[in-house]
Amino acid sequence: MNKKQLFERIKTKKSFLCVGLDPVLENIPKHLLKYENPVLEFNKQIIDATKDLCVAYKPNTAFFESMGLKGWETLIKTWQYIPKDIFTIADAKRGDIGNTSAMYADAFFNEAKSEMGFDAVTVAPYMGKDSVDPFLQHENKWVILLALTSNAGHSDFQLHQTPGGKLYEEVIRISSQWADSEKLMYVVGATRGSEFKNIRRLAPDHFLLVPGIGAQGGSLADVCQYGLNKECGLLVNSARAIIYAGNGEDFAEKARAEALKVQQEMEQILESAKLI
Amino acid sequence: MNKKQLFERIKTKKSFLCVGLDPVLENIPKHLLKYENPVLEFNKQIIDATKDLCVAYKPNTAFFESMGLKGWETLIKTWQYIPKDIFTIADAKRGDIGNTSAMYADAFFNEAKSEMGFDAVTVAPYMGKDSVDPFLQHENKWVILLALTSNAGHSDFQLHQTPGGKLYEEVIRISSQWADSEKLMYVVGATRGSEFKNIRRLAPDHFLLVPGIGAQGGSLADVCQYGLNKECGLLVNSARAIIYAGNGEDFAEKARAEALKVQQEMEQILESAKLI
Repeated sequence: MNKKQLFERIKTKKSFLCVGLDPVLENIPKHLLKYENPVLEFNKQIIDATKDLCVAYKPNTAFFESMGLKGWETLIKTWQYIPKDIFTIADAKRGDIGNTSAMYADAFFNEAKSEMGFDAVTVAPYMGKDSVDPFLQHENKWVILLALTSNAGHSDFQLHQTPGGKLYEEVIRISSQWADSEKLMYVVGATRGSEFKNIRRLAPDHFLLVPGIGAQGGSLADVCQYGLNKECGLLVNSARAIIYAGNGEDFAEKARAEALKVQQEMEQILESAKLI
Repeated sequence: MNKKQLFERIKTKKSFLCVGLDPVLENIPKHLLKYENPVLEFNKQIIDATKDLCVAYKPNTAFFESMGLKGWETLIKTWQYIPKDIFTIADAKRGDIGNTSAMYADAFFNEAKSEMGFDAVTVAPYMGKDSVDPFLQHENKWVILLALTSNAGHSDFQLHQTPGGKLYEEVIRISSQWADSEKLMYVVGATRGSEFKNIRRLAPDHFLLVPGIGAQGGSLADVCQYGLNKECGLLVNSARAIIYAGNGEDFAEKARAEALKVQQEMEQILESAKLI
């Protein structure tokens, strides 16, 4: 999916919601345990209940890998179940030397090899350009590079001052020479609302993937105040607040209700910004 | 395996060689294609041929993930095949917010959940302390943190000047407050021989995992000149130069010959340094 198509989907659905699929076997409703693959069933019901309200799904690969081989199979089947007109992000935070990153790109982009063909993958910047390039070689696919994250540890290195600015600013400035806003997005944590103005100065046209709404404590209004651009430019992720909204037989309805609340807030924001 | 045990293994085997298991289906000898799982068969024969010459194996997860579900199964079976007295490193370069890193730690350390119980995992530092901590909670397991890598892109961010020094120096300085040299190692590329002196100033007691010997062009003698410490303190990785030493029916013998050459050089170095 290219940038224009993504913006079209946002306008049609009046939403820039990304639903994070971070399933934990111990947390899913007990009545699903009768299924052969309870986690897959959980994901499917969450997808069915929210697919008209969001424009993206973001499975976090760690949650699947922790379940061993069965988990990797569940990741594949979850990706396959997501409707093809919805943007899919492998939240994998990979990054290695060039020939290795090429393998990671195959793992998430090359359906013929790996049975998965995500639209985007999250990538860590520490190893530099050749760790990112192989992902950029795949046509119509996206790199979402970690810039400023929402966790406590963001201050350990990302805010370090360098001659060119803070480290995360350097990540944006330097990486934006590797690809343009048609191939590259950035991860920017919602708990850093005040930094969005600064980030838009460095990356006016890029989409930003914003985790940290909901359970992690960020505010949608704060993010949008400075984060929106003329093509929306935001994918705002919510995982736990939606997928664990309920814990009983009606968990999918409760997830839908929570997603609907976010979508309606987003619709108002898009209208106020005259984007729809 | 703890640090003392690792040093004992090094002295017994007169080797600090780590063999990188980075198998690519297209590159393995054609006669193996008759096996149900040619890549697993390749790995097994490489392990059989080299296990008395090395102290560690390092499967790079990307190479397995690129092969989809079958690849993940091959990773599990490869880990299971490695003798239990050899140090195992999941070269995964993971790192995410705390609750997600806990999942990655389960994926590679928690055999009951994932069928894999590696001794160590490589971790990217960009997201800071809480992205590393969950790995450190696992008893008798190690984090190998990226410090100074051997790829071209190492200069994009790792050498950035900050008030406390270059970024990679800050990574070592700050992370060494999170855990001591009994839990934490660093990745330091062999192509950066001249930086080893500096790194030993910051991390005198830590083991360093050194990729970049062989195909990537680093010299063992250069690395050891400054890198050795009183407990050896080095795990030097070689992947392609060993596993692809041959391409015919005698590939395993050729891999062994190549590994033996490195082991013999290491034995001389350990003797010269009076470590054995």
